[in-house]
Amino acid sequence: MSSTLVDRLRAGLPDGAVVTDPAITASYANDMASFCPAEPPAVVVLPRTAEEVQHVMRTATELRVPVVPQGARSGLSGAANTSADCIALSLVKMDRILEVNPVDRIAVVEPGVINADLSKAVLAEGLFYPPDPSSWEMCTIGGNIGTASGGLCCVKYGVTAEYVLGLEVVLADGRLMSTGRRTAKGVAGYDLTRLFVGSEGSLGIVVKAVLALRPAPPPQLVLAAEFDSVRAAGAAVCEIMSGGHVPSMLELMDRTTVRAVNSFAQMGLPESTEALLIAAFDTADPAADLAAVGALCEAGGASQVVPAEDQAESELLLQARRLSLTALEQVKGTTMIDDVCVPRSRLGDLMEGVEAIAGKHALTIGVVAHAGDGNTHPTVCFDAADPEESRRARESFDEIMALGLELGGTITGEHGVGVLKKEWLARELGPVGLEMQRAVKQAFDPLNLLNPGKLF
Amino acid sequence: MSSTLVDRLRAGLPDGAVVTDPAITASYANDMASFCPAEPPAVVVLPRTAEEVQHVMRTATELRVPVVPQGARSGLSGAANTSADCIALSLVKMDRILEVNPVDRIAVVEPGVINADLSKAVLAEGLFYPPDPSSWEMCTIGGNIGTASGGLCCVKYGVTAEYVLGLEVVLADGRLMSTGRRTAKGVAGYDLTRLFVGSEGSLGIVVKAVLALRPAPPPQLVLAAEFDSVRAAGAAVCEIMSGGHVPSMLELMDRTTVRAVNSFAQMGLPESTEALLIAAFDTADPAADLAAVGALCEAGGASQVVPAEDQAESELLLQARRLSLTALEQVKGTTMIDDVCVPRSRLGDLMEGVEAIAGKHALTIGVVAHAGDGNTHPTVCFDAADPEESRRARESFDEIMALGLELGGTITGEHGVGVLKKEWLARELGPVGLEMQRAVKQAFDPLNLLNPGKLF
Ligand SMILES: Cc1cc2nc3c(=O)[nH]c(=O)nc-3n(C[C@H](O)[C@H](O)[C@H](O)COP(=O)(O)OP(=O)(O)OC[C@H]3O[C@@H](n4cnc5c(N)ncnc54)[C@H](O)[C@@H]3O)c2cc1C
Ligand SMILES: Cc1cc2nc3c(=O)[nH]c(=O)nc-3n(C[C@H](O)[C@H](O)[C@H](O)COP(=O)(O)OP(=O)(O)OC[C@H]3O[C@@H](n4cnc5c(N)ncnc54)[C@H](O)[C@@H]3O)c2cc1C
Repeated sequence: MSSTLVDRLRAGLPDGAVVTDPAITASYANDMASFCPAEPPAVVVLPRTAEEVQHVMRTATELRVPVVPQGARSGLSGAANTSADCIALSLVKMDRILEVNPVDRIAVVEPGVINADLSKAVLAEGLFYPPDPSSWEMCTIGGNIGTASGGLCCVKYGVTAEYVLGLEVVLADGRLMSTGRRTAKGVAGYDLTRLFVGSEGSLGIVVKAVLALRPAPPPQLVLAAEFDSVRAAGAAVCEIMSGGHVPSMLELMDRTTVRAVNSFAQMGLPESTEALLIAAFDTADPAADLAAVGALCEAGGASQVVPAEDQAESELLLQARRLSLTALEQVKGTTMIDDVCVPRSRLGDLMEGVEAIAGKHALTIGVVAHAGDGNTHPTVCFDAADPEESRRARESFDEIMALGLELGGTITGEHGVGVLKKEWLARELGPVGLEMQRAVKQAFDPLNLLNPGKLF
Repeated sequence: MSSTLVDRLRAGLPDGAVVTDPAITASYANDMASFCPAEPPAVVVLPRTAEEVQHVMRTATELRVPVVPQGARSGLSGAANTSADCIALSLVKMDRILEVNPVDRIAVVEPGVINADLSKAVLAEGLFYPPDPSSWEMCTIGGNIGTASGGLCCVKYGVTAEYVLGLEVVLADGRLMSTGRRTAKGVAGYDLTRLFVGSEGSLGIVVKAVLALRPAPPPQLVLAAEFDSVRAAGAAVCEIMSGGHVPSMLELMDRTTVRAVNSFAQMGLPESTEALLIAAFDTADPAADLAAVGALCEAGGASQVVPAEDQAESELLLQARRLSLTALEQVKGTTMIDDVCVPRSRLGDLMEGVEAIAGKHALTIGVVAHAGDGNTHPTVCFDAADPEESRRARESFDEIMALGLELGGTITGEHGVGVLKKEWLARELGPVGLEMQRAVKQAFDPLNLLNPGKLF
C-alpha cells in the first residue's frame, strides 16, 4: 500500500515534492515537545501550490491515509508529530507573501511564510503584524494559525486569532473552501475562520490567509523591576492592569529563569531577585508611562526599578526574555514547558503553587510568564535519562495544570493541546463541551484523517 | 398540540413566564427589518434562569417545536422574527450584571442586559466595554452576541466578537454547555465561543457571557470635515487610515443623511455638503491628532474642517451620527437598511455605485458609513404603501449587495443575515462554504429547531 500511496502522490506532484528517504523522513517526526510519541511518517510531501495540497488530500481520502500538516515544527505540544502510517504534509515551501496593502491594512500570505519575515516585510510599509511568539524567527504563519499563537505583545495587541480575517482551506476530501473576508468587518454566516484558528490542523489545511495589520507603533521602551517574592510581583501586575495602564508587554521571569538566562547567554540580569518584572510601553510618551508603572512597582515593594536607558538596552531585556525557554532547557538537558493561563488576579497563587509543587517533587521548575495576561510557562527541568526524575517531571507538569484549573484558568493559554494535553482538554471542557467539539470535528473530517489522535 | 405545549412549558416555568395572550404575543413577531415575513408566535416565554431556559429547550425538543431566541428585537435582518408554530424565547428578563472585575478586566452578564446599562456599570469602575451599536440604549448583550454587533468605535476597538471570552449556552436538546474562559488568553480546543458569536440564535441559547473590558480611554474629541463629493471623502478616509492614524471613530454621512438628520432633529449640520466626515480621537493628545487628520482632509479637498470646540460639541456630532438611521426612516416612512462592507480602498467606488443605483431606480438612498472600516449602510427610503416603489426598493437593495461583492466586500458587515439576506449568503459563501456551514448547524441542532429558516 505504501508504494501505491507514493505512486499516487507522485502522479500529481512535481519532482522532489515527495520524499521517502528514511534519513529525511525521520527528521519530520516531531515538533519540540518532550514526552510525546512520534514515529517517522510513511512519506513527506512538500507542495508548492493549493492545487498540489488538494491532490495530496484527495489521495489521502481515497486511500484512507492520515495526514499531519506541519509548519516549522516548533510547536510545544506534539501537535505536528507523525505516526508511521501517515503523510507528513509540510507547508514550508508555500512561503510567498502575496500582498501587503497599507490602505486596507491587510497582508495576504501563504502558510509557510516565517513570522519574522512577514513582520519585516510589513514594517517596511510602516505596518505591524503583532503576533510575536518567541519562536518568531523560525515558526510559520500556518503554524501560528494552527496553534492560535500568542507572544510578548498580546497583552496589548491580542493573539493570532484577532488578526486572521480570511482563509483558504483545503478540506479533508480535497475541496477548497474560502472563509471570511478581506474587509475590516463581516458577519456573513458562522465564523469558520476563527474556528480554524487553533484547530491544530485537525479541520483542514490552511493554504492562504488574509491577515489584519496595524500601523507600526512607536518603538517601545522597557523597564525592569526586581521583587523579593513572586507574590509581590504578581500583585504589582494586578495593580498595573487595574490602574488603567496598557503596556505593550508585561512579562515575568522567576529566579530560576533569570539564572538560566545568565548562564546561557551572560546577560547580566540581577541574580538575587526572586522575580523580575519587565514592562514596556509603545505609547506617545513611553517614559511617562514607565515612570507611573515604576512608581506602582516601588509602592508594591520592588527592591529595584531600572528603566532602560535607550532602545538598545530595551532590546537587550527583550532578548533575555525571549531566550528564557531555550536557556531553561540547558539546566537539566530536557524541559516540559507548561502553558497554564489564570485570571491575572490569581497569578500570585499560581506562582506560589508552582514553587510548592517543585519543592514536593524536588525538581527545578522555572517560571516565565506573559504576566499581564496571566499566562504562565512553568518549565520543568529534568534529566530525560533518569526515569524516576522523568516520572516526577510528568507528575508535576500535571499537578500544575490541575492547579491552573482550580484557580479558574485554562490548561493552555497559547501552546495548544496536541498530544501532550489530550486528557486534560477533556477535563477542562467537560462532557458536553467535549461532545460538541467532537461533533464539529466529525462535520469537517468524517473519516478522521486530519491529524488524528491530536486534541481528543 | 398547542395546549400540550403551553401546559408542558408552564410545568417548569413560574407564573407569568408563559404568555399566550394574542395581543401580547403579536408584539413579539418581528424585529426592525422591513420586508421580512413574520407571524405571531404560538407562545412567548420569558425565563429568568438558565434552568428555565433548559426546560424550554427540553420541551421544544420533545415536542419538536421551533424556538426563536429574542433580545430587544432591534435587529435589522429579521433574525428574531417568529413563525406561527414557534416559541418566542425572550431573554430580556435575564438582565443581571453578575460581576465586574477591574483586575481581570472582565464582566460576567446575563444575556438580557442592555448594552448601555453594561457600559455605564463598567465605566463606574473606570472600565470600558467598547461595542456600541447605535441602538445601544435598547439592544441586549445576547442580541449583540447573536449578531456580532459593531458600532461607531469598531475602527479602533473591534466588534463584539473581540470581547466575548466565554459563554454558557443551552443547546437545542436542553443541555448546558460552557465554552471559553475567564482568562485573557486560552486555546483549549476549538473556539466554539467565537462560533456562537454571530450565529443568530441558530446554534444555542446564550444564558451567560464573560466579556473582556478595557480601561476607559480619555474622552474623545471630534472633528467634522465637509467634502464636495463622496469620492473625495472616501479618498480622505484612505489617506487617514494608511497614514498610520488610529481614530476612535471615522464615520461618513452623505447629503441625504445630513438633511434627514437636520429635518428630524434640527441639528444644524451643513446642508450643502455632499459628504460629511466625522473623525474622533481618544488619545493622550486628541487635538494634535485631529489637527493632523484635518490637514489630510484639507489636502484631500475638504471645503470646511471644523474641530469640535469641546466635549459638548463632540457629543452633539456623535448624537447626529447615531440618529441617522432613525432620521432616514422619516423621509418616506419606510427604509431598507443595507450593510455592505468593502475593503476601505473601494469605499469611493461603493458610494458612487450607490448613487448610480439610486438614480437608475429614481429612489432616495441615504448612505451613512462606518467609513474607517469600509462598512456602509446604504439606506433605501420608500413608501411601503406603493407596491411599485417597494419593488424598486428591493431591487436596488439587492443591486447594492451585488456591487459590494463585486468590489471584494461582504453582504453584511455587522447586521447579519437573518431572513433578509439568505439568498445572498449562499452567493457570498459559495457551495463548499455553504455546505460546511450547514454541517456545523447540523452538528449543533440536528432537528433544526433553533431559529429555523434564518441564515440558510
Ligand atoms: C523557543 C520557543 C519559543 C516559543 N514561544 C512561543 C510563544 O511565545 N508563544 C506561542 O504561542 N508559542 C510559542 N512557541 C510554540 C510554537 O513556536 C508556536 O506554536 C508556533 O505557532 C508553531 O508554528 P510552526 O510553524 O512551528 O508550526 P508546527 O509546530 O509545525 O505546527 C503547529 C500546529 O499547526 C498545524 N499546522 C501547521 N501548519 C498548518 C497549515 N498550513 N494548515 C493547518 N494546520 C497547520 C500543525 O498540524 C500543528 O497542529 C515557542 C516554541 C519554541 C520552540
Ligand atoms: C436605530 C438602530 C441602530 C442600529 N445600529 C447598529 C449598529 O450601529 N451596529 C450594529 O451592529 N447593529 C445596529 N443595529 C442592529 C441591532 O440593534 C443589533 O443587531 C443588536 O445587536 C440586536 O440586539 P437585540 O437585543 O435587539 O437582538 P434581537 O434583534 O432580538 O436578536 C438578534 C439576533 O440574536 C439572536 N439572539 C438574541 N438573544 C439571544 C440569546 N440570548 N442567545 C442566542 N441568540 C440570541 C436572535 O435570535 C437574533 O438572531 C441597529 C438597529 C437599530 C434599530
